[in-house]
Amino acid sequence: MSVTDRIETALHRSLLQATSETTPPSLREAMTHAVFPGGARLRPGLAVSVAAACGDRNPLLTDASAAAIEIMHCASLVHDDLPSFDDAATRRGQPTVHARFGVPAAVLAGDALIAVAFEILATPRGRSEADIPRMIQTLARCIGPARGIIAGQAWELESETDIRTYHELKTGALFEAAAMLGALSSASDPSGWRAFGTGLGTAYQIVDDVLDAAGTERALGKPVGQDQLHGRPSVVTEVGVSGALDRLQSLFSELPSLIPECPRPDYIHAWLDRVGERLFPPLQNQAAAAMREEMTG
Amino acid sequence: MSVTDRIETALHRSLLQATSETTPPSLREAMTHAVFPGGARLRPGLAVSVAAACGDRNPLLTDASAAAIEIMHCASLVHDDLPSFDDAATRRGQPTVHARFGVPAAVLAGDALIAVAFEILATPRGRSEADIPRMIQTLARCIGPARGIIAGQAWELESETDIRTYHELKTGALFEAAAMLGALSSASDPSGWRAFGTGLGTAYQIVDDVLDAAGTERALGKPVGQDQLHGRPSVVTEVGVSGALDRLQSLFSELPSLIPECPRPDYIHAWLDRVGERLFPPLQNQAAAAMREEMTG
Repeated sequence: MSVTDRIETALHRSLLQATSETTPPSLREAMTHAVFPGGARLRPGLAVSVAAACGDRNPLLTDASAAAIEIMHCASLVHDDLPSFDDAATRRGQPTVHARFGVPAAVLAGDALIAVAFEILATPRGRSEADIPRMIQTLARCIGPARGIIAGQAWELESETDIRTYHELKTGALFEAAAMLGALSSASDPSGWRAFGTGLGTAYQIVDDVLDAAGTERALGKPVGQDQLHGRPSVVTEVGVSGALDRLQSLFSELPSLIPECPRPDYIHAWLDRVGERLFPPLQNQAAAAMREEMTG
Repeated sequence: MSVTDRIETALHRSLLQATSETTPPSLREAMTHAVFPGGARLRPGLAVSVAAACGDRNPLLTDASAAAIEIMHCASLVHDDLPSFDDAATRRGQPTVHARFGVPAAVLAGDALIAVAFEILATPRGRSEADIPRMIQTLARCIGPARGIIAGQAWELESETDIRTYHELKTGALFEAAAMLGALSSASDPSGWRAFGTGLGTAYQIVDDVLDAAGTERALGKPVGQDQLHGRPSVVTEVGVSGALDRLQSLFSELPSLIPECPRPDYIHAWLDRVGERLFPPLQNQAAAAMREEMTG
């Protein structure tokens, strides 16, 4: 099974197992709409690839880790899109959850997805060597108020925000956790993988900032220009589109050196190559168009 | 230390441990406002009392269980009070979280409290005999989309709702989990405690319905008449105030027979007596006033 199929199967299975005949129909539909169809599935791809690099010793637990990370990411998107935050009408080319099912269902779907992510990670499955409490802690911290995405999102409500902390929390935390959960699900030491996750998260944040500044809603399937509209810190505001692309290039070329010693580093190198192939061309097209406009406009 | 002091200390410690210097100040304040000052702290009281009845073999884990259950309850209140749900301006005699800090901070504070509840339960502390993954699953299910409070809340969005399922999920689930986590934290079999939690939850739901129908905002510190206003299922709508009180009396007198065999049942009997003393007199006063009004009005 390909990594993509493996992730989609794990996500479908997770939602099925975590709901029942007493799940209200509109809650179930809103949760499903939040998770399918997906975006690039970068975070679960990272978890699966790190687990593979570490020997994939508990495949079912790797699947659960990947699904938990992606479900947490989807939960954060549902709440971020709400009218009281980004007020976004589209996401991944579809109506957002609140646009389709209303604000109350969207708030509850986000809450429910958070619960599901924890439940599937705690449900026993071939986990004799794995440290489940530590995995739950890792998942809780990467979303929580100390150093997680919720803290990152809440920094948007403050009058003064340090851009580095903001990005580390809002984007980096989930990439770090994805890498660490991949290692932990293979009963491997996660500490070396943290820096790799951080690096990847920082790179992805630059991609996101450039696309928000230079992309189109049609190409991205979601509103653009949001950072400027909401006055949010952005790498593009800080160093411009070409400065951001230089920084991205340099960060991405450093990533392989951050891969810790592991039995099968080839899996993570191969995944990194695929991510680069997928992210860079559209980014360079969009950025080139934006820079042409800057020069001629 | 009294049970009350023990619970307040555990809650303070939990919020302190789960936040850091990178927690945005307004998020921290909103979370604190959601948890302090508390209400009756019935659910953590139940967890602590069941643990005591089972021998309280891991006191720090009992504290974590009690805090996790109460923090989850507070999270659900923050989201329930939002303008898109109950639109309540007061709670426990104070402005609600969104009334004081705004809707975005309230959404994020609720999310953050859910993360904190899982984190503190997963953080290692004298848990050699305890089954932490099972405790996490119990916590996740009691809030989740299959049989948890989020599912209960989402049934309010459906056009047809079965009142028994609605109450079992919206109120019963957290009482069941409190009783089960109390037992699990003492490394005891939780299965017998589930029915006791269910019974207590059903009794509390009747109290809540009667107070909503017959109480005053001044006495309760929160808006009343909400069930009728939002067209929600209520025991009072079904059988009237006096019918509800009869049902409550009969349920409460059955509760002691639901206590499973355990080393120190006296702890749970004593707690049940205190709960009865606390709940019944104000309830009977309010109900008597309401019934007088019904007869004369």
